[in-house]
Amino acid sequence: MRTPSMDKPPYKQHISSQFNAELEEVRQRVLAMGGLVEQQIVDATRALMEADGVLGEEVSRNDYKVNRQEVLIDEECSGILARRQPTAGDLRLVYAIIKTITDLERIGDEAEKIARMAVDLASQERLGGALVEVGHLSRRVSQMVHDALDAFARMDTDAALAVAREDVNVDREYEALIRQCITFMMEDPRTIRRVMDIIWSVRSLERIGDHARNIAEYVIYFVKGKDVRHIGLEAMEREVHAAR
Amino acid sequence: MRTPSMDKPPYKQHISSQFNAELEEVRQRVLAMGGLVEQQIVDATRALMEADGVLGEEVSRNDYKVNRQEVLIDEECSGILARRQPTAGDLRLVYAIIKTITDLERIGDEAEKIARMAVDLASQERLGGALVEVGHLSRRVSQMVHDALDAFARMDTDAALAVAREDVNVDREYEALIRQCITFMMEDPRTIRRVMDIIWSVRSLERIGDHARNIAEYVIYFVKGKDVRHIGLEAMEREVHAAR
Repeated sequence: MRTPSMDKPPYKQHISSQFNAELEEVRQRVLAMGGLVEQQIVDATRALMEADGVLGEEVSRNDYKVNRQEVLIDEECSGILARRQPTAGDLRLVYAIIKTITDLERIGDEAEKIARMAVDLASQERLGGALVEVGHLSRRVSQMVHDALDAFARMDTDAALAVAREDVNVDREYEALIRQCITFMMEDPRTIRRVMDIIWSVRSLERIGDHARNIAEYVIYFVKGKDVRHIGLEAMEREVHAAR
Repeated sequence: MRTPSMDKPPYKQHISSQFNAELEEVRQRVLAMGGLVEQQIVDATRALMEADGVLGEEVSRNDYKVNRQEVLIDEECSGILARRQPTAGDLRLVYAIIKTITDLERIGDEAEKIARMAVDLASQERLGGALVEVGHLSRRVSQMVHDALDAFARMDTDAALAVAREDVNVDREYEALIRQCITFMMEDPRTIRRVMDIIWSVRSLERIGDHARNIAEYVIYFVKGKDVRHIGLEAMEREVHAAR
């Protein structure tokens, strides 16, 4: 589904083809872990929207698969560091992977939280309205994760920048949705418990957006050799467009 | 304030004293970053409890210091990996540090969120009751962070285990507090907006507890060479007490 094309610099600068294969394998594992995590978000949101407790339970149960991937990839990375002692671009790639999988694992945790809210909501009287917009935010956020992984697969800094930009929109939509939920609770306090489940889910989606942005930042770190965390969007754009 | 004693195995196994000094320096930096983060939690909670908007603003403003430490330590770690090409225990130490600072930075983010809630609450009519227990949870969670850093300073697996155990209690206290906040909102819907600020703060405290537990897990990973994430408390206890 994703077509990685890593055949441009600074990737293939080392000489050992065995080492090359190892890096490629761990990279593929990260993409597979990412695919799993994407599916967890999609399923968790569907469980929430459709009040499907069974699907919610299934997503919860599957979180261990994401965790297992994280542990395995960490093992591979520390193995590569010990055996291959990479430097320059190769080291940055391993470093970016170590950071990326932490965020992927936490995206998995957030999906699991949404799934648990779905299970809780499924056992209560249905809520109308608010859920439509949750679906919209969820699609937006899943797309962000997809795009961040795509940027990672192609080590494409422009795509990474687009993910960081999208995070600003997601934050805005999140704020609006929370305000709406609060109004809803104030107008009908009997819905408070159920709306709180929605609020937690919306919060998880917003957090997922942050993690996708983090992944995008590691892509820029790998390609540009420059740490662009915490510097703001404009400075990030300058770094990406600066000649190296 | 903290007295690191790293003079027992598996720490001092390498030969270069310059390398030794580099590892010690980065370790000290992590502890300093941890001290900063602890202070941020304490100040943010005080701002919340005392409706002190000025202090809240100050905590928000200081978050950049935590971020800067993260970036600097990451640079040092990738420098050490490139120049020193550590293996075995040294590599595990660097790996544990790379992971630890990600969690410390995110604890800083949560403290900043609490500070922003403090600023928001300071501009509104005061809420009574609920805040007392938030103070209790905050002290508990700050202590967890302190203990996790202490376990890291001494590379003490028993202390790390105690942090992981404490996280279970924190989660329980968190659940009770959230239920209490929801009841509060249902009884007096005019308080909803303000109680939501409390709820976000309580959530941030719970997340800080999770991050402290993560740090404790990296300590066990470093000492035991065993990844104890996602395996549950009992299995973690077995790993710590197993002879190596």
